[in-house]
Amino acid sequence: MTDNKYCVIMAGGIGSRFWPKSRQSRPKQFLDILGTGKSFIRHTYERFAKIVPTENFLVVTNRKYRDLVLEHLPELTPEQVLCEPVGRNTAPCIAYAAYTLQKRNPDAEMIVTPADHLILNEEDFRAIIRECLEFAAAHDALMTVGIKPTRPDTGYGYIQVSAAQPISKVKCFTEKPDLELAQTFLQCGEFVWNSGIFVWKVKSIIEAFAKYLPEHHLLFSGVQRALGTDAEQNIVELAFAECRAISIDYGIMEKADNVYVRCGEFGWSDVGTWGSVYEHTAKDEHGNAIPEKNCYLYDTRLSIVSLPKDKIAVISGLKEYIVVDTDDVLLICPRADEQNIKKFIDDVKYNNGEKHI
Amino acid sequence: MTDNKYCVIMAGGIGSRFWPKSRQSRPKQFLDILGTGKSFIRHTYERFAKIVPTENFLVVTNRKYRDLVLEHLPELTPEQVLCEPVGRNTAPCIAYAAYTLQKRNPDAEMIVTPADHLILNEEDFRAIIRECLEFAAAHDALMTVGIKPTRPDTGYGYIQVSAAQPISKVKCFTEKPDLELAQTFLQCGEFVWNSGIFVWKVKSIIEAFAKYLPEHHLLFSGVQRALGTDAEQNIVELAFAECRAISIDYGIMEKADNVYVRCGEFGWSDVGTWGSVYEHTAKDEHGNAIPEKNCYLYDTRLSIVSLPKDKIAVISGLKEYIVVDTDDVLLICPRADEQNIKKFIDDVKYNNGEKHI
Repeated sequence: MTDNKYCVIMAGGIGSRFWPKSRQSRPKQFLDILGTGKSFIRHTYERFAKIVPTENFLVVTNRKYRDLVLEHLPELTPEQVLCEPVGRNTAPCIAYAAYTLQKRNPDAEMIVTPADHLILNEEDFRAIIRECLEFAAAHDALMTVGIKPTRPDTGYGYIQVSAAQPISKVKCFTEKPDLELAQTFLQCGEFVWNSGIFVWKVKSIIEAFAKYLPEHHLLFSGVQRALGTDAEQNIVELAFAECRAISIDYGIMEKADNVYVRCGEFGWSDVGTWGSVYEHTAKDEHGNAIPEKNCYLYDTRLSIVSLPKDKIAVISGLKEYIVVDTDDVLLICPRADEQNIKKFIDDVKYNNGEKHI
Repeated sequence: MTDNKYCVIMAGGIGSRFWPKSRQSRPKQFLDILGTGKSFIRHTYERFAKIVPTENFLVVTNRKYRDLVLEHLPELTPEQVLCEPVGRNTAPCIAYAAYTLQKRNPDAEMIVTPADHLILNEEDFRAIIRECLEFAAAHDALMTVGIKPTRPDTGYGYIQVSAAQPISKVKCFTEKPDLELAQTFLQCGEFVWNSGIFVWKVKSIIEAFAKYLPEHHLLFSGVQRALGTDAEQNIVELAFAECRAISIDYGIMEKADNVYVRCGEFGWSDVGTWGSVYEHTAKDEHGNAIPEKNCYLYDTRLSIVSLPKDKIAVISGLKEYIVVDTDDVLLICPRADEQNIKKFIDDVKYNNGEKHI
């Protein structure tokens, strides 16, 4: 009997916010930034492998990360790795996976997940995903997983739910709010964080593409017809070259009227910044997050240090700093300035430092 | 015709103050901390090679640095490198060289110099050394080179001169003074810094050893007799095991009555600390000393950065810091705390970090 449940892992990001630890040649999803012993993508695969059979995984990634994906997930066959010629945000990524899956199994039920999130309570998380799968199988529903917010975070999108049930129709999506609005959301109690984890029937999402992103529907229907033919590579190339870069949230979820959210609490974080890594790392008595044991800290507080293996650091007199050392790049930066990392990268690039990016 | 002029380079130090750039396996004298393109010992050799023929150099160093010396000074033969089994301060080091030289040439005139000093105006310096050689050849004199002080430095020893002539008899030696005393010395005008560079006839210094350090005289006379015999190695071992560790200043120069100083100004520094490296390195417009071109500094002032080749650093928000990165150790430390480096080293050692020292 065919298992209709599929898991699509989106793994195309370059994670520049974790530079210099993340690199164009090895972005965040392939790293173990939290020192858990496994990369983010490996954790993601193992998390869903208890629900979805190995052969029903698809990973969508940039072409240049294909070998890295197969290295981290040796259980997969090359046919399970879909390669984007270029990143075009989540809608084209999901379209590529959905139209491919539909050809393989028109009855497919599809989980979509980022490759690089942290989930602490995996059992609870899987119970919720199972509920979503059941609901999506029984309804023409686009399901998203919402997270009960614990603080007025301005780095996440918010979803307003219309009822207090576990599965509720979505009232509206809100992009990253300012602090005041985030505080209002938190107090109001009707808002949850948008985790970017989705569940739906392939049939439902393709209907939504046809309705809300007809241009993408056209291009990826072409991709679907070309799958397995000599033209496949060229048509994929064309689809990504032609299609508009747009997120699935903005392109479909905010517009469709069959969007449902299943709220949960299971220790979730998108681990999007060093600040977030700091939050999720064990601290010493001075509030320093030092995943490695090879730091000698003096008069240093509330800082995070990341070092290459077999390297030691002696650090004196730093308060609230990020210190990230790699083989060819050293970064020392106040935690409050981590949003400048993209500027640093640009400056290094501009000075012919491409090899350090 | 035999040239009686010899140059003894003292190169036994481990330079722990420059850790982690200096290491037990590669101490300061073998480094190019100032980014000049040559190691300190190489500069020292070339400085004196215009006065002294190559075959008249001796280097005294620790046994473990023998190959490094020959690597940096390939002009020398292995017989020109005297190996101390263990460091015992400058008096035994100089005795080993003097008693060895006396056997090779009883009329030897001897320049003694540390391997790791900076001298900016080498022409003026050599003119002074030539004067010293002439004076020492004509008199039974223990000559030392004094530096006209430019600031009340508490890191140097001071010598009080008895007259305003270029070559003057020494009135007294003073160990590193406190700031108040150093200021008095500077105002008084009679005091010069003790550079630790000496000139004398071998005959004169050996007479001084016999008189002021008879124990060392006995041990190194034994070494002299054993030179070239099968017993040489054992006797050297014994002499260093038995002899008291003592500086030539304390053991002889402060006691002898035939000590003369030749004062000069030639841009001298013993480059003893990172602070001193900071002083002698070109600065950017924010007062940062960055010998390498591969630093991206933001909101960073009055700091010094040292990186391995081909590495870049992005540093934000540091004021008056030392950042020294090497392959296996990263040091970040306020400039004001550089005297703590020895403590850092001890802590690393204590935690089984011997390989990082």
